Amino acid sequence: MRVLVLGSDGYLGWPTCMYLSQAGYEVIGADNYFRRTAAVELDCEALVPTPNLIQRAKIWEQVTGRKIITHIGDVTNYEFLLSLFEAYHPDAVIHYAEQPSAPYSMLNRDKAAFTIQNNLLSTLNIVYAVKEISPDCHIIKLGTMGEYGTPDIDIEEGWIQIEHGGRKDKFLFPRQASSLYHTTKIQDTDLLWFYVRTWGLRVTDLMQGPVYGISTDEADMDEKLIPNFHYDEIFGTVLNRFIVQAVAGYPLTVYGKGGQIRGYLNIKDTLQCVHLSATQPAKSGELRIFNQMSETFSVNELVERVKIVGKKLGYDININHLENPRREKENHYYNPKYTGLLKLGVKPHYLTDEVIEGMFRIVETYKDYINRDAIFRGVKW
Amino acid sequence: MRVLVLGSDGYLGWPTCMYLSQAGYEVIGADNYFRRTAAVELDCEALVPTPNLIQRAKIWEQVTGRKIITHIGDVTNYEFLLSLFEAYHPDAVIHYAEQPSAPYSMLNRDKAAFTIQNNLLSTLNIVYAVKEISPDCHIIKLGTMGEYGTPDIDIEEGWIQIEHGGRKDKFLFPRQASSLYHTTKIQDTDLLWFYVRTWGLRVTDLMQGPVYGISTDEADMDEKLIPNFHYDEIFGTVLNRFIVQAVAGYPLTVYGKGGQIRGYLNIKDTLQCVHLSATQPAKSGELRIFNQMSETFSVNELVERVKIVGKKLGYDININHLENPRREKENHYYNPKYTGLLKLGVKPHYLTDEVIEGMFRIVETYKDYINRDAIFRGVKW
Repeated sequence: MRVLVLGSDGYLGWPTCMYLSQAGYEVIGADNYFRRTAAVELDCEALVPTPNLIQRAKIWEQVTGRKIITHIGDVTNYEFLLSLFEAYHPDAVIHYAEQPSAPYSMLNRDKAAFTIQNNLLSTLNIVYAVKEISPDCHIIKLGTMGEYGTPDIDIEEGWIQIEHGGRKDKFLFPRQASSLYHTTKIQDTDLLWFYVRTWGLRVTDLMQGPVYGISTDEADMDEKLIPNFHYDEIFGTVLNRFIVQAVAGYPLTVYGKGGQIRGYLNIKDTLQCVHLSATQPAKSGELRIFNQMSETFSVNELVERVKIVGKKLGYDININHLENPRREKENHYYNPKYTGLLKLGVKPHYLTDEVIEGMFRIVETYKDYINRDAIFRGVKW
Repeated sequence: MRVLVLGSDGYLGWPTCMYLSQAGYEVIGADNYFRRTAAVELDCEALVPTPNLIQRAKIWEQVTGRKIITHIGDVTNYEFLLSLFEAYHPDAVIHYAEQPSAPYSMLNRDKAAFTIQNNLLSTLNIVYAVKEISPDCHIIKLGTMGEYGTPDIDIEEGWIQIEHGGRKDKFLFPRQASSLYHTTKIQDTDLLWFYVRTWGLRVTDLMQGPVYGISTDEADMDEKLIPNFHYDEIFGTVLNRFIVQAVAGYPLTVYGKGGQIRGYLNIKDTLQCVHLSATQPAKSGELRIFNQMSETFSVNELVERVKIVGKKLGYDININHLENPRREKENHYYNPKYTGLLKLGVKPHYLTDEVIEGMFRIVETYKDYINRDAIFRGVKW
């Protein structure tokens, strides 16, 4: 099977390339280095300096003998994307090529406009390239649990049957997100759902909770294959940030009361989810939606878990409840369903103390790289 | 009250400027002439050549002594829009500055990309300009009934309470549209709803059905003040097209079985709806949604009405059921609620035989201007 990974230089994109390559897939990765460029601009680079995509593919080949084909270019440039489809006729395309940060999208109008244009035009271009060149190609698109927000009803996997006035019909589950970034992910679903109905595309939407972790079987083969691990306010996810804050002796930053509940998953589970979705594709004319998480925690639960493990490792850990810079509920009902991916065969990696300790151990190795100024920026909305 | 009308050269924009000016409002109109340019490019210009916006404002002033301020520029250019807000600090902004054609948005990738960028960046820019300069400014945004599609349940006015698993919550009414253009109108609602919740904006969303008509009290004052009336497949709405087809001796083009039901309104009712929404604004933090239509018809009902009046006027009228170029249901349940605007005080103009005859009479005057090649293009999706 031939898989095109868009956004292949990213935190999830690069580990996905390696995982699928190791599984024997023919992998083509493309990236425009947006994240690297933005991280330099905002002085919030990844914890560990990672070789560029072309270099990482070379190292991967040296280590495993397997080849990952790489192209540097922008998916919002239709000619570039079309040239990839014409050259490789992929069986599946994995769409990580979106601007992935809520705080980045809220910095100012220009960043908001960039997020809209990047995320929607990349999705539109994939739709058109698939239709024109490979109509049977399976589009695997990363959504986010954040699209649903925190409704007062159970969150189904993407769809809901509504009874109203004695009649009923089936609809996309209602979505209302709490950042512009998350809103663009609602919008790209609007886009894909329209073209799925109209042109019979095959699409799987993986509604991902926050991902944590730095270790994957493939990344562990060589230090230079490590994912680009962010711990800053702009690009870092919450657990990754807490670990780095703990190691840096920085108070763990909880927004508001800390009662916000989300569904989390280990980076290793992301790889399984994407892989198993690719091996069991959506049908033509189907928008298949999975909620992608392994377990739910409140922010307070997470911070306590980190504190316990940190203390055992000899760290003096303080927790700082900041005034919440975001508009979000700090105490709310949260009951998402997430059995679809288990049925596909995903074996979850749960967040044990050993997993947290493992993250501490890796971050400790790179302790001197931590840029304390990147940890907190105070982006408000 | 000072009102900024964006898209003020358009079919609805220009009559809105005149209506509000006549009602004593201070009106500032802006337009980038997108529609004129696109209509020339696609050889589907309006039935009656209309003077440009600056000229029309001059004629309006000569006829009424009232002034409409005009600016030519693109709302997706943030500096341009900001300069208007800084100069005028409007109390209300009426957002017609979107690419309004479903077939245009389905022509090819470039037109689709343009539609997404134009419609979402214009909306984003309005949000930011309001927040930065006039946080209390009321945004009146034109939505479309097409956003809802044709669900098997009653269509409420924008919102629905969902009971699910013994719990309940209120959400935007589910939306799934049948063109890329209509999908961008779902997306701009996603955008506005996010910023309404986050920044407390005031927004009214008018979910408009297809508009028909060429006569308004103000436009009737001088031939040169006529709205730009389209009858082509790209920019024309269905009843306007049928009248021109009848006058041209062209078979009336019904797509498929003709059982498609929609909610229609006279252009005079659009003006009332916008005006009454402006005088009774949404509250801060409120996204107020009205379904904007006066009555529902199936395409077959409409075509029969035109046929009866046309025959009375001596026309030989044929009906041509084309293979439907669109993906849409041709027989479906359709029960939209639309009482909100009546409660605001709108007095509907219903589609009587006299109204249809009036449209025939005006179109007859310009019979020689009809470009038969513009009537049918065969845009498929």
